[in-house]
Amino acid sequence: MPDTFAHMPASPLPFADVPDAVHARAARVRLACFDVDGTLTDGSLVFDAEGRELKTFHVHDGQGLVLLRKVGIAVALITARKGGIVERRAADLGVQAHVHVADKRAQVQTLCGTLGIGLDEVAFMGDDLADVGAMRAVGFAVAPADAHACAGDSAHWRTRASGGRGAGRELCDLILHAQGRLAGIHADGRVS
Amino acid sequence: MPDTFAHMPASPLPFADVPDAVHARAARVRLACFDVDGTLTDGSLVFDAEGRELKTFHVHDGQGLVLLRKVGIAVALITARKGGIVERRAADLGVQAHVHVADKRAQVQTLCGTLGIGLDEVAFMGDDLADVGAMRAVGFAVAPADAHACAGDSAHWRTRASGGRGAGRELCDLILHAQGRLAGIHADGRVS
Amino acid sequence: MPDTFAHMPASPLPFADVPDAVHARAARVRLACFDVDGTLTDGSLVFDAEGRELKTFHVHDGQGLVLLRKVGIAVALITARKGGIVERRAADLGVQAHVHVADKRAQVQTLCGTLGIGLDEVAFMGDDLADVGAMRAVGFAVAPADAHACAGDSAHWRTRASGGRGAGRELCDLILHAQGRLAGIHADGRVS
Amino acid sequence: MPDTFAHMPASPLPFADVPDAVHARAARVRLACFDVDGTLTDGSLVFDAEGRELKTFHVHDGQGLVLLRKVGIAVALITARKGGIVERRAADLGVQAHVHVADKRAQVQTLCGTLGIGLDEVAFMGDDLADVGAMRAVGFAVAPADAHACAGDSAHWRTRASGGRGAGRELCDLILHAQGRLAGIHADGRVS
Repeated sequence: MPDTFAHMPASPLPFADVPDAVHARAARVRLACFDVDGTLTDGSLVFDAEGRELKTFHVHDGQGLVLLRKVGIAVALITARKGGIVERRAADLGVQAHVHVADKRAQVQTLCGTLGIGLDEVAFMGDDLADVGAMRAVGFAVAPADAHACAGDSAHWRTRASGGRGAGRELCDLILHAQGRLAGIHADGRVS
Repeated sequence: MPDTFAHMPASPLPFADVPDAVHARAARVRLACFDVDGTLTDGSLVFDAEGRELKTFHVHDGQGLVLLRKVGIAVALITARKGGIVERRAADLGVQAHVHVADKRAQVQTLCGTLGIGLDEVAFMGDDLADVGAMRAVGFAVAPADAHACAGDSAHWRTRASGGRGAGRELCDLILHAQGRLAGIHADGRVS
Repeated sequence: MPDTFAHMPASPLPFADVPDAVHARAARVRLACFDVDGTLTDGSLVFDAEGRELKTFHVHDGQGLVLLRKVGIAVALITARKGGIVERRAADLGVQAHVHVADKRAQVQTLCGTLGIGLDEVAFMGDDLADVGAMRAVGFAVAPADAHACAGDSAHWRTRASGGRGAGRELCDLILHAQGRLAGIHADGRVS
Repeated sequence: MPDTFAHMPASPLPFADVPDAVHARAARVRLACFDVDGTLTDGSLVFDAEGRELKTFHVHDGQGLVLLRKVGIAVALITARKGGIVERRAADLGVQAHVHVADKRAQVQTLCGTLGIGLDEVAFMGDDLADVGAMRAVGFAVAPADAHACAGDSAHWRTRASGGRGAGRELCDLILHAQGRLAGIHADGRVS
């Protein structure tokens, strides 16, 4: 690493004040589920003149989902909305997408059955009323900083970043950190 | 509900400092009207190279409008601009849209006649000069945090959120709260 | 006007701390010129996959330009970039557009000749190096809050709002205020 | 220059607190390389309904890249993603684009060979894990204010502006300043 002349301290990973109990929840995660709108996006619903939707993800979140996948943690995007865009984004990142899901809690339970894991090994990140059922069922419920109060109240942990502005990556980093994988990734500049 | 290890307090619903008189206005609402640009959007007017407009709503606002509708409060989007996008968004949410409206106050009065309610039972949320007439006529005038001063000065209440960033949902939540419906919705994770 | 129960004071027009000399400059304006990118937009240059540009204006700025026009102040959008979008937006608002302008100062001088006014009766709002020449020539040079330092240093006044987030409207309001027209517009909810 | 009545001090170039060692690094730069997503953009990945990507640059950054080129500093955009948009934007600005780059450090070394310069004469601005290898290799590694911690930790300097919101321009300005060219550009309103 270079000698450092940075005039500002690098922003530390925001985990210094994460309680041990939250670390313990993150350490158990084998499946990480992410709501899309308001969680992996900033909640914007953009429509063009023909009524077609555009959607905006964040490049940092994508990197985080790929890192989770590479260390062997299952990743699923779960949305109540229809979603060719979500399915394509998931395919690009090599993760699962489940769209037009009416009952997210039931979807998570199905995924647990397929993977042969328990709900206590699941992280679910969500930001609003439709996520609350799933969040209350899993071992590690997480909300972005700007989640609606009903989701924030159902979370074990809230990220410092807002939805679509790095909240997803922050959860990925915490899981990797709690499972002892993050320092090596940063030192190598890649997953070794 | 899970035991809570959140290291940050969940953001409370921002109603603790709402005066009783504002609660009383919200409790009477049977029709909630929303301007679109600057109120349900952040004021951005996006055009593509062919001159077609794109428009950006927020997923939290949509959830709020649906909740109002489900508890039996009429909801109308009212805009001076043309608007296939607004009409489609309203249809998706199951609410009314009135576009290309030259006189919003007159439009609100027409809606009152159709519903058989008084202007004192109407909430109108707006952010600029074209909304001021309607805001001065209704029982509950509301402006987003970043409304133009002329609309802020005509409002009984201003939300903490900005237009297109949850201001609409904040009004929906206040109405539901004032009418005794919000706690049950959050406890159940849905409208019971 | 309604009795007011707002729990937050309405945001005042931000002119209380504007020096008299700036008011005097605003009071003389008969032509208001606006750079586009970074001034009437937030500086974003959006391209689609075919290389076509999209552009985002703000609804508050549009209202301000219309108000200037209605009280008889000439309004011109002046951009160095090509611009079907700018020309269409200007046409919608009933103001002039001058696109693909290599020398903005020369363009302003031409407009002064056509209108039979002096450079001291011109306001020019710009945000970067290409605007500096025009800003140094006119009677009232204005920069958005987030202008590049080179434009900020060339301005008689800087708005509180950023480019594309109401900076244009703030200048319109100041001009209307300095010319004694703003209070009546706000009281009537329209240009009387 | 006009007499100044600005009621706010113009935002100074943010170089007052830049250490001498950072200035020395900037003074040596003959090739300036920029990652794209999160560096020259705010990290947003926007997709339309057909899966085509849109991308948003900032007008201030474009002006900075042009200024570097005009004073004879080579400029290259380097991205791991595919990129017709990036190639077109680079062509508009008259700078190089290298897209779909798997190993950014190797790409920088190739460019050094072509230009006949050393890695110590290269600036590389990046914001995430895929940039870390190149950042650790060059003479002047820079990260936007909102870079991921792994990039911030690998930087000699972090800008005050965020990615896509002027971070690129801030680096351009520092290089021009350190090489004694900035004051003249601002005084003339152009590259003399």
